[in-house]
Amino acid sequence: MTYKLVLLRHGESEWNAKNLFTGWVDVPLSEKGTEEARRGGKLLKDAGVLPEILHTSLLRRAIMTANLALDAADRHWIPVKRDWRLNERHYGALQGKNKKEIRDEYGEEQFMLWRRSYDVPPPEIELGSEFSQDTDPRYAGEPIPRSECLKDVLERLLPYWEGEIVPDLKTGKTVMVAAHGNSLRAIIKHLDKISDEAISGLNVPTGIPLYYELDEETLEPVTKGGTYLDPEAAKAAIEAVANQGK
Amino acid sequence: MTYKLVLLRHGESEWNAKNLFTGWVDVPLSEKGTEEARRGGKLLKDAGVLPEILHTSLLRRAIMTANLALDAADRHWIPVKRDWRLNERHYGALQGKNKKEIRDEYGEEQFMLWRRSYDVPPPEIELGSEFSQDTDPRYAGEPIPRSECLKDVLERLLPYWEGEIVPDLKTGKTVMVAAHGNSLRAIIKHLDKISDEAISGLNVPTGIPLYYELDEETLEPVTKGGTYLDPEAAKAAIEAVANQGK
Repeated sequence: MTYKLVLLRHGESEWNAKNLFTGWVDVPLSEKGTEEARRGGKLLKDAGVLPEILHTSLLRRAIMTANLALDAADRHWIPVKRDWRLNERHYGALQGKNKKEIRDEYGEEQFMLWRRSYDVPPPEIELGSEFSQDTDPRYAGEPIPRSECLKDVLERLLPYWEGEIVPDLKTGKTVMVAAHGNSLRAIIKHLDKISDEAISGLNVPTGIPLYYELDEETLEPVTKGGTYLDPEAAKAAIEAVANQGK
Repeated sequence: MTYKLVLLRHGESEWNAKNLFTGWVDVPLSEKGTEEARRGGKLLKDAGVLPEILHTSLLRRAIMTANLALDAADRHWIPVKRDWRLNERHYGALQGKNKKEIRDEYGEEQFMLWRRSYDVPPPEIELGSEFSQDTDPRYAGEPIPRSECLKDVLERLLPYWEGEIVPDLKTGKTVMVAAHGNSLRAIIKHLDKISDEAISGLNVPTGIPLYYELDEETLEPVTKGGTYLDPEAAKAAIEAVANQGK
């Protein structure tokens, strides 16, 4: 027996489309993202990969993607858990800024360090500023960050992985996690034991379910890297993500 | 201090629009229903009635109504619980049948008895038939009905009300219940202590939040019947529901 896990990155958001750093800013899906979400659900249904419990972040692009995908897969009725620990990486003071402008202003090296280094967070966001979440009721009482590198994401995500997701996997239910580029990269790094260096080259496409079977003893993936339910589309999309900000 | 409860009947479904008995058949919202759901969320936001925890049935018209309304109210991120005990009344063998045809075939008296009597259920649905739910995985292991009158709905709903909803109310959180004409009528009958006879005259409009404050000692409504967040629209809609099947 193996445990069954589906990772789903949200469809394109309005700020993906505008090439802005989003992070914890709670922007909606674009029209294209809405379609991606529905298509992701159809892929689940066609593959017979039927989630039995859902975990989401607290951000509407992941929540709405899960809502639309599960509706398309006839699994809209499954139990749901939500937690900020599945949120996107907090992009600090870069939130709301144009990726190309940041690249032009700070140069390619600094830009890539902030985007892709494992342990260099962007400058912290100013509390009370337009794109800060410090007064948002959904995070009240939580130790939320003011900026994060991928290492920070993995560290705040792991307690939720161990405490909430692994126990659900161990019930034998198919678990779906609807989240973000960087929170999913953190999970994949953990699962596939990817090095701090190699993780910078890993991109997760939007809206294409990534299916893992995990060994019931070790929780290691049976197939390293899992299986995209539409491998051709995933390949094309991964290349497109890698070209963002260019 | 009072406890805060929002009841929300799903927006128009494709079968409401076609005048079919729906019950547990899992039909989607119509375009109009989608708009009603969004408008319901806007009413919540404008009134400052902000749900902090959501309960839904297992049917997509209630689930999607809640998803859309909460997104419009910026409360998409709240915790969710779902249970079949909040489902619509099971309409038995009438599920999938046209209301006008049933009325013409069985006569006004029998039709109104099935639709509105407190304790006369329609004939049971045949197991394995097109509109039966006996093999649906979402109900696996649950003691689901084959037909229900409103009394049956109240009886299967009360354990969930007492066991799950009341404890959430007692935490002081604003609780939203997204459900159906008859499961909401059952809750309202219980809350407002409406007699078995008088409940037949009570209709709940689609998509308009009904807000109750409940006494913290007795759980009795501070205002009997609660308050619709758009009273004018509620009045017009209630009259329209009463005319269904005519």
